[in-house]
Amino acid sequence: MSKISNLVLFMMLFSFMNFISLTSEAKPGKTQQPKYIFLFIGDGMGQNQSYATNLFLNPTSKEGQSLVYNQFPVQNFMTTYSANDYITCSSASITAISTGHKTNNGRLLKSPNTDSTYFSIAEWAHAEGFNIGIVSSVGINHATPAGFYGHQNSRNMYYEIALELPQSGFEYFGGGGLIDSKGKKGDQADAYAIAQNKGYQWINSIEGFNQLKYGNSNLLVTNPILEAEAEFPWVIDSIAGNLSLAQFTSKGIEILGDGKGFFMMVEGGKIDWACHSNDGASMLYEVIAFNKAVNEAYQFYLQHPDETLIIVTADHETGGLALGIEKNLKPELMQYQNISLQKFQKKVEMWVADSLHPRSFEEVMQSVQFHFGLGNAQKGLALSNEEMALFKAAYRNDFVNHTSRKSDADYLDHEGANGLAQTAVDMLNHKAGFSWASHDHTATPVPLYVIGAGSENFTGKMDNSMYFSKFQNLMKRKK
Amino acid sequence: MSKISNLVLFMMLFSFMNFISLTSEAKPGKTQQPKYIFLFIGDGMGQNQSYATNLFLNPTSKEGQSLVYNQFPVQNFMTTYSANDYITCSSASITAISTGHKTNNGRLLKSPNTDSTYFSIAEWAHAEGFNIGIVSSVGINHATPAGFYGHQNSRNMYYEIALELPQSGFEYFGGGGLIDSKGKKGDQADAYAIAQNKGYQWINSIEGFNQLKYGNSNLLVTNPILEAEAEFPWVIDSIAGNLSLAQFTSKGIEILGDGKGFFMMVEGGKIDWACHSNDGASMLYEVIAFNKAVNEAYQFYLQHPDETLIIVTADHETGGLALGIEKNLKPELMQYQNISLQKFQKKVEMWVADSLHPRSFEEVMQSVQFHFGLGNAQKGLALSNEEMALFKAAYRNDFVNHTSRKSDADYLDHEGANGLAQTAVDMLNHKAGFSWASHDHTATPVPLYVIGAGSENFTGKMDNSMYFSKFQNLMKRKK
Repeated sequence: MSKISNLVLFMMLFSFMNFISLTSEAKPGKTQQPKYIFLFIGDGMGQNQSYATNLFLNPTSKEGQSLVYNQFPVQNFMTTYSANDYITCSSASITAISTGHKTNNGRLLKSPNTDSTYFSIAEWAHAEGFNIGIVSSVGINHATPAGFYGHQNSRNMYYEIALELPQSGFEYFGGGGLIDSKGKKGDQADAYAIAQNKGYQWINSIEGFNQLKYGNSNLLVTNPILEAEAEFPWVIDSIAGNLSLAQFTSKGIEILGDGKGFFMMVEGGKIDWACHSNDGASMLYEVIAFNKAVNEAYQFYLQHPDETLIIVTADHETGGLALGIEKNLKPELMQYQNISLQKFQKKVEMWVADSLHPRSFEEVMQSVQFHFGLGNAQKGLALSNEEMALFKAAYRNDFVNHTSRKSDADYLDHEGANGLAQTAVDMLNHKAGFSWASHDHTATPVPLYVIGAGSENFTGKMDNSMYFSKFQNLMKRKK
Repeated sequence: MSKISNLVLFMMLFSFMNFISLTSEAKPGKTQQPKYIFLFIGDGMGQNQSYATNLFLNPTSKEGQSLVYNQFPVQNFMTTYSANDYITCSSASITAISTGHKTNNGRLLKSPNTDSTYFSIAEWAHAEGFNIGIVSSVGINHATPAGFYGHQNSRNMYYEIALELPQSGFEYFGGGGLIDSKGKKGDQADAYAIAQNKGYQWINSIEGFNQLKYGNSNLLVTNPILEAEAEFPWVIDSIAGNLSLAQFTSKGIEILGDGKGFFMMVEGGKIDWACHSNDGASMLYEVIAFNKAVNEAYQFYLQHPDETLIIVTADHETGGLALGIEKNLKPELMQYQNISLQKFQKKVEMWVADSLHPRSFEEVMQSVQFHFGLGNAQKGLALSNEEMALFKAAYRNDFVNHTSRKSDADYLDHEGANGLAQTAVDMLNHKAGFSWASHDHTATPVPLYVIGAGSENFTGKMDNSMYFSKFQNLMKRKK
């Protein structure tokens, strides 16, 4: 589309949004200007991911009332398509959310075909005088958090994005670390050091974290324990020495919460990762951790109800999750999984590598039962002969043929044959009535849940490109 | 400027103009009492069924703006669980919608374990002086329409429900006929005759339909062409001599639309049936017909914006539809199917029965290509060797082994092996990126779309049991 038509579109959108703000101003005493804005993004969190977690948390009640945002007074859904596909990627969707512009999949705050740069709501708000916090459970230069300060033709330019981080001047980056902090080949100047040279404090210990308080600024605070791509460990694996997304959120509130007002984005990034590998139980625990982070904002809202706006939404759905296979839905069965697919896969790989102590099929199945409940009839998880045959084939893929998935990347790219780990996860999901259509994103509209000052602006037809001007209208200050 | 961007501009302008007309309605702050209430129920229509239809209608644009209710100013989603299951059936959900009470699956306006009777919003509104219209594209004593006048321990007591119909005194029943009108065994007094004896006019011709006008009352108006269970033919099959759901809706408006005010329920009943057999294309055409019925109400709303309330929702999702399989989504491929699964199945059965003229695999595949596009590389529907092998197996199931699905009931109960019809439908759906998790209902929350007087009452957390009191509050008249 030409620049002119883009301009016309923008003007129409602008007049459309002005119209909304006019009509909402016409409501006497209705729209209040929020001073504290929280944007929570459950990456890959469709309505079913969220609703399944409700049911899992409270399986004896059909109500599923346990997630705090489930009670928010405005609930809606929105479309997420990108400029070039019905199915968006995270960087195209976050570009739409944070700048109001649709772009092509893979691009980050850049136009679809030219290199025009878009600016994010966080950059705009920072210039307006708001403090800014960016929090994620995955790498802080991964697509979603990067979508508030990074501007690159490809979301995969992690190093270049890392170099943009200190240029933002944002007050608080918290959670995951820097992916490719020394470049793709590890031969570049350390991006952590560059950030420090530019005036950022880098904290990566619990002690340092605990000492942070109101007024500290230009912070890059990373979880002391990070996995290969600078992300948090899986919540389901309960790794000690770890800080939670909720802790990074409440610390952000403490640091930013002065009289200036703030905009804080918090991403539950591994909801998406769990859905990519169709690991339902790990997804549930990631949503639970995400909800706890929302709850920190909600507690703040209760103290400042007239000045706080909280939005909980997603960038897209991942996995095409459906709840119910031929009338069967038993979310409570998910409680018997106590390990992430990824960690169990690593366990299997260690067994395979330990050539001096070959594990028998029966030994391996004991571990499957311990970690997934599968084979335990009392738990409602007896295995049929056909199901045992699937496990035998998986054992051969792992131990004999060595054709099964090996690395984290294999999971994200869904390469390789199903080994024991994927077989166990798939089978438990099937028995629980969790059906997955895909290992990738889907086009299904995603939910939004809104509470607080200005929430009445989010009731109508929503698309991910509509946040930017709504935020601007709500946050614009008379000068 | 390209055609596509012109289209986008037009659609934005359209939505902008719509927005102006939307905002010229009820002043916020004080709820207006609607005089004309429309409740549209897309049976089995989850968010993906609806969104897929948007995309199918307008495949060159990612916007998917084509369904009229997609522009309604209040959009939300709601939970649908029944008293005894996460996954509801139509009768339990319609009981919740029409009476505010959760009950067990299978029951109709009766309490879960005792025989306490619930009364519907239509019965209450009728007593308050509203005219009542009940319209469906399936049997008018099928669960959803029956949920406004029938009270039975089982939704399957069709004959008993049919006998309740004339007792309701409702002004207008339109659309499908009476299932089991002479009882399950065909040995009871004709329920049509009983209705006539009780003062109902039964009209089942286009001439009779056309003569109906404002002021006619106690009407049972059935489509001249009905299928085995008293339902409309499939929209995709374009059967002549047939009246549409939209025609029954506009006729209802004409008949009921006097000064008293009315409550009209309109069900798109075969959306659910198509989803039960995972027949995506047939589903799309049923949603399109449903949307045309909504449009009749919307045109009425435009003339009476301060007095009309329209709600478009669903009783549950069916099929666990996901949009996108491993990044692939091509809704436009669905245009190549031009026959319902059910009708194609009947065609195959006729071929099988015609023993004097055995059809070869190649002959049969020509018909598959004609009706589904499959095998046509120009349409993007080339068949691989593996896919041809599936068709060969299906041919054997139909013509050699005689093990494939035979009857309508087989589809609803998903009995039998996949024959050619199901294989063709499944393959087209897969190529279009439509994934189905189930042949039955799922627990996924369903959308609602609301416009008009009182619409601001539907923004918060919604469950199917919350309509009844909202309707009562909106419709209660000071006396």
